[in-house]
Amino acid sequence: MAKEITPRSEDYSQWYLDIVQKARLADNSPVRGCMVIKPHGYGIWEKMRDQLDFMFKETGHVNAYFPLFVPKSLFEAEEKNAEGFAKECAVVTHYRLKNDPNRPGKLMVDPEAKLEEELIVRPTSEAIIWNTYRDWIQSYRDLPILINQWANVVRWEMRTRPFLRTAEFLWQEGHTAHVSAEEAVKETLLILDVYAKFAEEWMAMPVIKGVKSANERFAGADDTYTIEALMQDGKALQAGTSHFLGQNFAKAFNVQFLNKENQQEYVWATSWGVSTRLIGGLIMTHSDDDGLIIPPKIAPTQVVIIPIPKPSDELTVVAEKIAAELKAKGIRVKIDNDDQNRPGFKFAEYEMIGIPVRLGLGQRDLAAGQVEVARRDTKEKANVPLDNLAEHIAGLLDEIQSNLFNRAKAYRDEHITKVDTWDELIDVVENKGGFAYAHWDGTTETEEDIKAQTKATIRCIPLGWPNEAGKCIRTGKPSERRVLFAKAY
Amino acid sequence: MAKEITPRSEDYSQWYLDIVQKARLADNSPVRGCMVIKPHGYGIWEKMRDQLDFMFKETGHVNAYFPLFVPKSLFEAEEKNAEGFAKECAVVTHYRLKNDPNRPGKLMVDPEAKLEEELIVRPTSEAIIWNTYRDWIQSYRDLPILINQWANVVRWEMRTRPFLRTAEFLWQEGHTAHVSAEEAVKETLLILDVYAKFAEEWMAMPVIKGVKSANERFAGADDTYTIEALMQDGKALQAGTSHFLGQNFAKAFNVQFLNKENQQEYVWATSWGVSTRLIGGLIMTHSDDDGLIIPPKIAPTQVVIIPIPKPSDELTVVAEKIAAELKAKGIRVKIDNDDQNRPGFKFAEYEMIGIPVRLGLGQRDLAAGQVEVARRDTKEKANVPLDNLAEHIAGLLDEIQSNLFNRAKAYRDEHITKVDTWDELIDVVENKGGFAYAHWDGTTETEEDIKAQTKATIRCIPLGWPNEAGKCIRTGKPSERRVLFAKAY
Repeated sequence: MAKEITPRSEDYSQWYLDIVQKARLADNSPVRGCMVIKPHGYGIWEKMRDQLDFMFKETGHVNAYFPLFVPKSLFEAEEKNAEGFAKECAVVTHYRLKNDPNRPGKLMVDPEAKLEEELIVRPTSEAIIWNTYRDWIQSYRDLPILINQWANVVRWEMRTRPFLRTAEFLWQEGHTAHVSAEEAVKETLLILDVYAKFAEEWMAMPVIKGVKSANERFAGADDTYTIEALMQDGKALQAGTSHFLGQNFAKAFNVQFLNKENQQEYVWATSWGVSTRLIGGLIMTHSDDDGLIIPPKIAPTQVVIIPIPKPSDELTVVAEKIAAELKAKGIRVKIDNDDQNRPGFKFAEYEMIGIPVRLGLGQRDLAAGQVEVARRDTKEKANVPLDNLAEHIAGLLDEIQSNLFNRAKAYRDEHITKVDTWDELIDVVENKGGFAYAHWDGTTETEEDIKAQTKATIRCIPLGWPNEAGKCIRTGKPSERRVLFAKAY
Repeated sequence: MAKEITPRSEDYSQWYLDIVQKARLADNSPVRGCMVIKPHGYGIWEKMRDQLDFMFKETGHVNAYFPLFVPKSLFEAEEKNAEGFAKECAVVTHYRLKNDPNRPGKLMVDPEAKLEEELIVRPTSEAIIWNTYRDWIQSYRDLPILINQWANVVRWEMRTRPFLRTAEFLWQEGHTAHVSAEEAVKETLLILDVYAKFAEEWMAMPVIKGVKSANERFAGADDTYTIEALMQDGKALQAGTSHFLGQNFAKAFNVQFLNKENQQEYVWATSWGVSTRLIGGLIMTHSDDDGLIIPPKIAPTQVVIIPIPKPSDELTVVAEKIAAELKAKGIRVKIDNDDQNRPGFKFAEYEMIGIPVRLGLGQRDLAAGQVEVARRDTKEKANVPLDNLAEHIAGLLDEIQSNLFNRAKAYRDEHITKVDTWDELIDVVENKGGFAYAHWDGTTETEEDIKAQTKATIRCIPLGWPNEAGKCIRTGKPSERRVLFAKAY
């Protein structure tokens, strides 16, 4: 199996597509830009979703569900938001098919079933949700509203790639309503922290928290905060965003509340989301030329037990005993009882799909009271005594989790380069890759000029990094702080 | 609060709508026939989903995700299925909006962005899934495929009611592929058992397992199995269906496999689903004129603790201690720390939203070492000693769960009436309500005639009930067995 993957050094883009297919994460579909998420890919998404959902609830949020469709009149109400999504949205215009008189057995759209008002398949749900919040909010006592939704959304992207950019994707979108700008900003940052913690502690994917430049803001936001990760090819990935929406949607949908001073005021809003795009980030943070690597904490299966050379009654008894001990420690384990394929084939297969730890259970090892333990991240193998095996494996899973984070972080840190001249910026963007940390004069014109020249964009103005005045690397004009430039997915 | 609900005796239909609204389960939306599922309603759905998901996985199924859109050419491939859904489907015809030159700031569908092939918003996913399975299945070694999907679907129903019948709804749809008819039928019945077990043990909603008559079959199925529940107004509710699809979809999408005899054969299929409709069933199985009643096992909050007359430092300390003890027993508990509303208001409110158990924590009771425990199902109150309170509550929740099931079952059993004449059938359908257990000659003509005369349909031919020959109550022709007739939602 492994040799079927294109090496990263040869064609990174093809390597990515090979991993998606060979690790059985997703398939193409007959619908333009839409993918089928296969059970292994969906299993990873379930682990991500469950952990994020837990973290949202721990911070006081609840889930709800709003309609898939947005009537056009609501869609266009917040003009910037509408403008941002109008060019890439799926539009429902009819509600019935009928038999095609010219093609027996075939169907056609029934022209008599045209909708009076077209429905937009949600590309994001601010419009439909704020239209609803108007009915839910009268006074400050109805606030805050802290709602999240797990849903599918559709954006008619022209160039798609599995997980990274698809016409339909799965995500969560939080939509909160507050009495003050201060409280809303606090919420925006709270969620940014949740996202960063999830990315680093669960996905073992280091991220930089920052704020977007005006040019890269969400359509309809006053400020967009982001977590930015770095992929192995030196390109950045925007992995999650949290928006302070000000009163834009409240004004567009006339959502006011009676404040404590008994005055009508527009409500303050946030929205925030992460999506199945995270799986793309996961692949490109950890995986290698032998296949996918999944951090143990979000691996649907953490350990696979393989009887060698093939299952037998005796080996099965031992395998089941080990599995029971691992399960008792909360470890997700699977026994491979297939008796057709040979161990070498299976080893390559489990490496391909990224199972963190593999136990090889052979007769001779057992006689010596040990098993062979192979870790996916480093490919190291060791003979480990059966006594206290579960404890050893639990420790090993923690170690793999840390190792994946540390090596991704080392790579990322090596690829943040302070640059002070235009030539240095070009060099980093074109040759070294990663983030160029450079001064910028703060204008959209300069940002767009740099993008046109280099294809690099401002990924973010990092939060909590030391401020330092200087001169813009492009225009020489004064700059208040450095920002991070990179090519990005 | 409570008095705002229309009593069932006055207007059952309005009572249902009142519960949906006052118990904060769902709201109408500006999209025709689509509802907003509010946090309390969604919390119940999450409990249902988590338990069902657990049961599917326990029986060997995995989750995946397939596209929202079905290209028209795939949609129409299985003709019966297509015919069944063509009249009620949302059709995407365009992928872009543009500025409307005649209405500044408004948008219009861009006529230049017309899709070459229209996309149907999935009303069910057999077509898109079987088109994919063709690529996944070559030999018997690729089978069975046991996949489930949690998703939204859209059916453009003309007459909608929250949860019971909405244009968009949430559901799960299982789609399995097998080497033989026998294995597929076994799967169909396995899932029927999972559904029945879930309905009875978790929702406390008694159901009858049965098979549908040809007339009531899923479009594209060879056989449809169902669980049928009985609502308090004497109407039946189809609560879940499991379909044996034969080789219909395999033939429509040319999905063949190489069998053990090295011959090409069409694959055998099943599909099965339950939806947010279950919440409608939950409401109409248990609730009363004071509001919603939720069985403890699927209640997002099982116990609420209310300090009386209002929160104080001292009462909060005790409330938190009790809450900790309950949580340690796995009980989902909430403390009401609101200091604005009075206890009477709160009692009515928690009755309205259906929290199974309410603890009233008053100074005087505490001095006596006890709290007031009120159960939602019977409205009984008792003073219970603080010692071993958690154990008492755990037992009480079990008792409420059983009581809800038993009283629903008693009602249901009283409303299965054996009838032997046409007049008796009319009487049951029009006056007593519930199921009329009657002989039927087995023809679609008679079934449709009975429906036209009485509005009652054949809900199912119950499984495992004694067979007994007789004469059709409508035509007098020979009948092999009795079937269950009822009016239905």
